[in-house]
Amino acid sequence: MKVAMLRTRWCVLLSALLTASAGLPKDTDPQALVAKVRNYRMQNELRILHELFELLAIPNVASNQTDIRRNAEHLRALLEKRGVRTQLLRAERGSPAVYGEKRVPGATRTVVFYMHYDGQPVNPENWLSPPWRPIVRDTAGQAIELEQLQTPVHPEWRVYARSASDDKSPIVAVLTALDALEAAGIPLSINLKFFLEGEEEAGSPNLGAILSKYADLLEADAWIFCDGPVHQTRRKKVSFGARGITGMRLTVYGPIRPLHSGHYGNWAPNPIALLVHLLASMRDPDGQILIDGIYDAVRPLTESEKRALAEAPDIDALLRRELGLAWSEGSGRLEERLMLPALNFRNIAAGGAAARNAIQTEATAVLGFRLVPDLTPELVRQLTEAHIRKQGFHIVYDPPDLETRRSKQKIVKLQWGKGYPPFRTSMDLPIAQAVVRIVEEAAGEPIVKLPTSGGSLPLYIFDQTLHVPLIMVPMVNHDNNQHAENENLRIRNLWDGIEIYASLLARLGE
Amino acid sequence: MKVAMLRTRWCVLLSALLTASAGLPKDTDPQALVAKVRNYRMQNELRILHELFELLAIPNVASNQTDIRRNAEHLRALLEKRGVRTQLLRAERGSPAVYGEKRVPGATRTVVFYMHYDGQPVNPENWLSPPWRPIVRDTAGQAIELEQLQTPVHPEWRVYARSASDDKSPIVAVLTALDALEAAGIPLSINLKFFLEGEEEAGSPNLGAILSKYADLLEADAWIFCDGPVHQTRRKKVSFGARGITGMRLTVYGPIRPLHSGHYGNWAPNPIALLVHLLASMRDPDGQILIDGIYDAVRPLTESEKRALAEAPDIDALLRRELGLAWSEGSGRLEERLMLPALNFRNIAAGGAAARNAIQTEATAVLGFRLVPDLTPELVRQLTEAHIRKQGFHIVYDPPDLETRRSKQKIVKLQWGKGYPPFRTSMDLPIAQAVVRIVEEAAGEPIVKLPTSGGSLPLYIFDQTLHVPLIMVPMVNHDNNQHAENENLRIRNLWDGIEIYASLLARLGE
Repeated sequence: MKVAMLRTRWCVLLSALLTASAGLPKDTDPQALVAKVRNYRMQNELRILHELFELLAIPNVASNQTDIRRNAEHLRALLEKRGVRTQLLRAERGSPAVYGEKRVPGATRTVVFYMHYDGQPVNPENWLSPPWRPIVRDTAGQAIELEQLQTPVHPEWRVYARSASDDKSPIVAVLTALDALEAAGIPLSINLKFFLEGEEEAGSPNLGAILSKYADLLEADAWIFCDGPVHQTRRKKVSFGARGITGMRLTVYGPIRPLHSGHYGNWAPNPIALLVHLLASMRDPDGQILIDGIYDAVRPLTESEKRALAEAPDIDALLRRELGLAWSEGSGRLEERLMLPALNFRNIAAGGAAARNAIQTEATAVLGFRLVPDLTPELVRQLTEAHIRKQGFHIVYDPPDLETRRSKQKIVKLQWGKGYPPFRTSMDLPIAQAVVRIVEEAAGEPIVKLPTSGGSLPLYIFDQTLHVPLIMVPMVNHDNNQHAENENLRIRNLWDGIEIYASLLARLGE
Repeated sequence: MKVAMLRTRWCVLLSALLTASAGLPKDTDPQALVAKVRNYRMQNELRILHELFELLAIPNVASNQTDIRRNAEHLRALLEKRGVRTQLLRAERGSPAVYGEKRVPGATRTVVFYMHYDGQPVNPENWLSPPWRPIVRDTAGQAIELEQLQTPVHPEWRVYARSASDDKSPIVAVLTALDALEAAGIPLSINLKFFLEGEEEAGSPNLGAILSKYADLLEADAWIFCDGPVHQTRRKKVSFGARGITGMRLTVYGPIRPLHSGHYGNWAPNPIALLVHLLASMRDPDGQILIDGIYDAVRPLTESEKRALAEAPDIDALLRRELGLAWSEGSGRLEERLMLPALNFRNIAAGGAAARNAIQTEATAVLGFRLVPDLTPELVRQLTEAHIRKQGFHIVYDPPDLETRRSKQKIVKLQWGKGYPPFRTSMDLPIAQAVVRIVEEAAGEPIVKLPTSGGSLPLYIFDQTLHVPLIMVPMVNHDNNQHAENENLRIRNLWDGIEIYASLLARLGE
């Protein structure tokens, strides 16, 4: 019943969108454009995969500068071949970003496409095949060499390699989109810029410096981020922000040496008891954060954002079944829950694996906050410390000395990580609406629009330096094993990505 | 002020006791008896230490039956030499107990002295010198061979060896007490029996079987346990029971695989959050157990027991300072707190050492209960499970299968240990009062009387099989490193033990 209603609603929306774009010039009719791009792809599948394989074969861990240089030069060549003027953007240290620019006479909008070309470090022994020797596998996991592939390549087969999904295939998708438009004689509608980061997986240590240094060069009306996966239902997704993050390690103390729990039990303070009460005071089992002031700082969702969430497919029941869960925290659906700040208990430890029957000397937990606008790490830290003090704890930032332990009743050591704030672009901006419309038309089916994705990205760096709308248009499959062994790309997602990015290139300047 | 008052109170009590015993026959006058025993010891210090060293030189881990047999035969010879008739008491398996008996014509009381001759396993690499090569060390830790010792041996020097304290030196103390009485022409006042257990450190797996099988042989009016240490103030101690014990490992569940805390944070149930709330519901930071019914089962202290606790030296401030604590749980002193049941959180774990920013699949804790009369492991288990169910948990005893995880909201797996009940002898029994009086007079200063010691011992096995008063009269120093490396005996404690046990042998039948 619910699904049927949802479908009807989507159909109405789609018709409205299709009607709205009916007035476009004939050669950029959304469906015709997609058909032309698809036609180009179908005639070039092996060449496209070959280009992807060549790029994936270059190892790309950010700490290896020789490899990074090979990647950067290879990418410059790929871009220049498409008439994109390139240069390397460097901070004082770290990997360069590959910058590319293709100006279009008469274009009124300038849009930067962001991807990164570095990848997570690997443990090759965990991989089915070497991480930088890309290979196709069929749905049964059988390896097929590129040379043996026949067209049309089965779209459910996958490419296995480090960065197959995260984040080299989007680069090849945009390059192929350029080729397809060129082949079809469809001009770009925007001034196109590329920003290919070279140390995203290393935590973007020099990103702020690069953005500041090259702010003029990078001027644009919007950035399109082609990183991350589409929705778990395989629907296309556009999202407008990411949660921020902060966190800390928290240690509470008992006696200075472990004590026999018979001789000292319920006299010597038990640090595990102190810890569980402190943690329980911070968050209930339903996910509600109990720290005063946290929710006051949460920016309310707009009407568009609420509507977008309501329209997103409801995958709760499916996910619960997959994850062996009879329930989920709070009362809302996953998409709604991700719009709230989260306090995750990551780790808890005291007593070691083979703990004797003793009162331990300390107990520790690692806490992670996911932040939504307008919570900042600084505010969370301030509110959390006020809460902890209200529970009667004396806060220290270094191991307490003997005198402190003898004089303060409850002591907690806090070791805060750096963290960064969340970011969210308004879905109501014209450019945001345009991106949604174009992706939706290219997909030919409803897409998922998320005000903020659940994961954290340091989007604030772009926002603070460039003050520009940031919109995420991912293409890769959600089940891609990114950051882990056997990272992979479902080939269908590459084909779809080409069509979506081509549509954006051809139509975002309209 | 408090100390002064305490001293006054003790002086009054002592005078009363000394007056009460003034009517004894001259040759058992308490002080004269102690003087004679002491005189004997001073003339035989090296011989006594030699006898102890020979016993300590025989390795005694219960799992090595060859060593155990050598110990048992050696002990039989030592006993027989004193006119004690011996035999080995055996269950179907395990180490034998060495039994000894010396009947005294006209004695009206029969008393069993309990010690054990097996010792904890060792890690020789952690020891300053080999664990079964006994050596004396001076207060600076300098080793002195037995042959180099001169008398009088400094009473603060210590004997280092496995079982130097736990529990071979009390055997030598009682044997020497027999020698001293014999030399002084003082007869035993009781029928004396020895029960020297051979697998106490292995958990007494066959003790119940031995006691049942030889119940007639072991008939007595009381058992004196010569295991364990005296008070931390070095005062002599008599105690009348021990806490029981039970415990369990408790595991709660989240999703069946770890989840990205950004993509699923405050939607997927966090097992650490479930665990900390469950544990916090069971016990407050002040040691109070919050499980309904636990305190209802606690037998109230008698007036004598309350008085004994009030008279015990107050070492709280000293201990807190030594342990780096600004406070202790609850409002009572250590001795009072040990009269209550305790819930100790031994261990807590989830997420591993290098936990990623993930929602974990499970979280686990190990809980230990210390039981006082009349709490039994069965009752604690029943009350605890009722409490856990009241918190909304579904209890399982094996890992829950996928169907259970999909259908039950909060699941907890409980793995209970076996445990055993507490035991306490009434301090008001005539034999209990006699022991206290005799030890106090032998010590010549106030002693510490504890209704129940904090640690756990399976005294219930003796009680359930033999239905006899059990009284603990320890002699070794509290800082003896028992169960660990460099176990030691302060020589002064051996000398004092000889005097105390001799007084009991000579006077307990009065």
